Amino acid sequence: VSEPWTGLDVLDEAACRERLGRVRVGRVAITIEALPVVLPVNYRVLDGDIVFCTAAGTKLDAAVRNAVVAFEVDEVDVEARVGWSVLVIGHAEEIVDAGEKARAAALGIDPWVDGSATRFVRIHAERVSGRRIAGAG
Amino acid sequence: VSEPWTGLDVLDEAACRERLGRVRVGRVAITIEALPVVLPVNYRVLDGDIVFCTAAGTKLDAAVRNAVVAFEVDEVDVEARVGWSVLVIGHAEEIVDAGEKARAAALGIDPWVDGSATRFVRIHAERVSGRRIAGAG
Repeated sequence: VSEPWTGLDVLDEAACRERLGRVRVGRVAITIEALPVVLPVNYRVLDGDIVFCTAAGTKLDAAVRNAVVAFEVDEVDVEARVGWSVLVIGHAEEIVDAGEKARAAALGIDPWVDGSATRFVRIHAERVSGRRIAGAG
Repeated sequence: VSEPWTGLDVLDEAACRERLGRVRVGRVAITIEALPVVLPVNYRVLDGDIVFCTAAGTKLDAAVRNAVVAFEVDEVDVEARVGWSVLVIGHAEEIVDAGEKARAAALGIDPWVDGSATRFVRIHAERVSGRRIAGAG
């Protein structure tokens, strides 16, 4: 995914990953019933991949099973016309291995869901790209 | 798109539209070269629809031509575990009518692009839904 924007500075992968590591909320883009959907999730980084929670039985949970999804984080200051966005694209899968589940559980992800059985989903960070948003000034 | 989340309160359409009207940055989910992509855009509401800018010749510009896209805005306070998200799904099209272009230009959208020829894109707000994010407390 090269240059979806013009006039914006490209962030190198290290800069993208640094930003992924310090933000806590991102948005995952999935397909539900053949329609595009974007939802915010509380996430953490594990081995360079994105990990978030879903509740068993939800459409979100179903949508992230072995699908290629997009995950985005950004910080934008509208008044100052500065900011950045980072995009991760990769296969999503439920974490089922007991050891990996324990590691995911230790990340401290807040699933925003009360009392439901949560599953951990990993988005393999196969493509990581980012842009600085630099206004015309 | 019903209940992708559990444990979250549904926002009615009026509450969704009020939030769309007061936020300035949202994220549009599109498909570029068969991959899902999410990008932040500076937007405004026009006749209940979402309007933002693209630069002519970019992949974003091509991707939003007569495609069904998702558009999302949210405000999340991670510490307080409160927030909301609103999702708009609908057909995107370039605004080509001169009168409509003048109305779009008057909205004061900052295209974040320096010196490029900008086009105005309208996402018809055919489906509007939203959720309150209420943490387990």
